[in-house]
Amino acid sequence: MTFATDTAVHRIDEGRWTATIEPGWDIAGNANGGYLLSIAMRAVLDATDRPHPVTVTSHYLRPGRPGPAAVDVEVVKAGRSFTTARATLYSLADGQETPLMAVLATCGSLDGEPHPAELVTAEPPVMPPFADCVRMEATDGFPPPFMARVDLRLHPDDAFVTGHKSGEARIRGWFTLPELGDGDAVDVLGLVQATDAFPPTIFNTDLPVAWVPTVELTSHIRAVPAPGPLRCIFTTRFVTGGFLEEDGEVWDSAGRLVAQSRQLALTPRG
Amino acid sequence: MTFATDTAVHRIDEGRWTATIEPGWDIAGNANGGYLLSIAMRAVLDATDRPHPVTVTSHYLRPGRPGPAAVDVEVVKAGRSFTTARATLYSLADGQETPLMAVLATCGSLDGEPHPAELVTAEPPVMPPFADCVRMEATDGFPPPFMARVDLRLHPDDAFVTGHKSGEARIRGWFTLPELGDGDAVDVLGLVQATDAFPPTIFNTDLPVAWVPTVELTSHIRAVPAPGPLRCIFTTRFVTGGFLEEDGEVWDSAGRLVAQSRQLALTPRG
Repeated sequence: MTFATDTAVHRIDEGRWTATIEPGWDIAGNANGGYLLSIAMRAVLDATDRPHPVTVTSHYLRPGRPGPAAVDVEVVKAGRSFTTARATLYSLADGQETPLMAVLATCGSLDGEPHPAELVTAEPPVMPPFADCVRMEATDGFPPPFMARVDLRLHPDDAFVTGHKSGEARIRGWFTLPELGDGDAVDVLGLVQATDAFPPTIFNTDLPVAWVPTVELTSHIRAVPAPGPLRCIFTTRFVTGGFLEEDGEVWDSAGRLVAQSRQLALTPRG
Repeated sequence: MTFATDTAVHRIDEGRWTATIEPGWDIAGNANGGYLLSIAMRAVLDATDRPHPVTVTSHYLRPGRPGPAAVDVEVVKAGRSFTTARATLYSLADGQETPLMAVLATCGSLDGEPHPAELVTAEPPVMPPFADCVRMEATDGFPPPFMARVDLRLHPDDAFVTGHKSGEARIRGWFTLPELGDGDAVDVLGLVQATDAFPPTIFNTDLPVAWVPTVELTSHIRAVPAPGPLRCIFTTRFVTGGFLEEDGEVWDSAGRLVAQSRQLALTPRG
C-alpha cells in the first residue's frame, strides 16, 4: 500500500499492460487524476525503455473508480535522445473497456550534467518548514481519502481547510509520500503525482465553484529530485468562460525546479 | 496563398485527411511548427465536428519540408460538451509515411456566454501601437521566409533583430495574418499559429544558443478573438539542463486573454 505498489503495471502483451486502480486514492469516490496518470506513465516508461518522463500530457476523459485497469501504449517515434508514445488508460470494470485517460508523452534521460546555457529568473516559494505547515488530513468527505496516500502540508496562509481563505487563487505547500524516510527522494513518477495532488487554487477565493474537474494536464519533468519533501506552488490568473488554468512549480530541497505543470480545468456553475 | 488555403485539408477516407506542406512557411528550410500544427488541427476539427480547439498538445517529432502530407485522426471520446482526439501528421514525400507531429486535442464550443465565476489577475502586455512596432521581415536567411506568411511586429524593446538585445528572455509583439483587413479577426486556428510564430525568447539574451527546437507545445484556446491584431507575450524563466519553457499569452483587441501556451524546447550546445 505504497505509491509504487499501487501504481504497479504488468506487461501482458505487445503494447498492453494491466494494473489495478486501488481503493483509497479517491476524492469523493473518484480516483485522483495524478494517481491514474502515474499508472499510465509507469507503462509508458516500460514501453519506451527510458528512465524519465520529459513532457507528459493527459486528457481526463472520465472519472476512475477502483477496479481492474489496462494501459495500451503505442510508441510513435523512438529517436536517439527521446521516445514519444501515446497511451490510453482503460477501466476494465464490468467486462467493459472504458477509456479514462488519453496520454501523449515524450521520455528520455535527465542526466543532470551541467549545461553551458543556464538562466533562472525565479525563486522557490518561501514557506514555513514542513513541520510547521498544515497537514491535509484524510476523511470520508473533505479532505478526501486520497490525502492519506500522499503527504501534503499547506502553507498556513493558504490553508483554506482551517476556515481562512487567503483570497488569492494560490496554493503553496510541501509534497511527499508517507512511506518515504528522511533520506529518500520522491521519484519521477511521484513528481508526476505531485503536479496533480493539491486542492484547487480557487478554494482560497470566494468564487462559487464546488469542484474543478481537470480537462487536461501537462507536466514537464525538468530534473530528478534530491531527497526530501518538495516545495510546490500552484497559481491561477485566469478564471474565464467556464475554464481556469493552474500553473504549478515543484522545487526540490537543493533549490532546483524539478517540475513545471499547467492544467486546464472547468468551473461548473453552482 | 493565405493561412486558410495553405492549411487546407481534404478528407479522403475514414480517419484520413490529405494536405500539402506549402513552401514559404519555413525557417531555415523547415516548416514552422505552428503552421504544421494548424494543418493537423484543421483535420481534427473536421473529425470531431466541433468548432473550436480547447486544449491542444503537439509533440514535434521531425522537421517538415514542403510536399504532400496526411493527417490521421482517431476520436478517443465524443462527449456532451467536448470531443477528444489523437492525430498524427505525416509527410508523404518520397513515397514514405514519415510522422512529423503527434497531437492530442480536446475540442468544443467556446460560446462566449458570461459565466458567474470570473477572476482575472493579469493584464495584457503594454506595447506601442501596431504601426510603431518593428516588423519581422522575411529573408532567405534570418529572419526566415515564414515571416512573409504571418505579420509579426515586435515591441521595440524586444526587437533583437535591430541589433539591441533586452537582456531578458522575453518577446512581446503583435500577431496578425497579412491577408486580414481592418475589420477581420484571427480565427481559432490562426490563434494556434500565433502560439508558435515568434522568435525564441532567449534571442534577447546572451545565452550561446543558436536554435531552439520545440519538443512539445500545449495551447489553451480560451476565447474566440475579436477583430484586430493580437497582443502577444512570451517569457522564459527556466533555462536548465538543456531545456527551456516558453510561456505565451495572447490577448485580443477587447482586452481578453484568448490563448495561453507553453512549450518545452531544447537548447542545443554550440
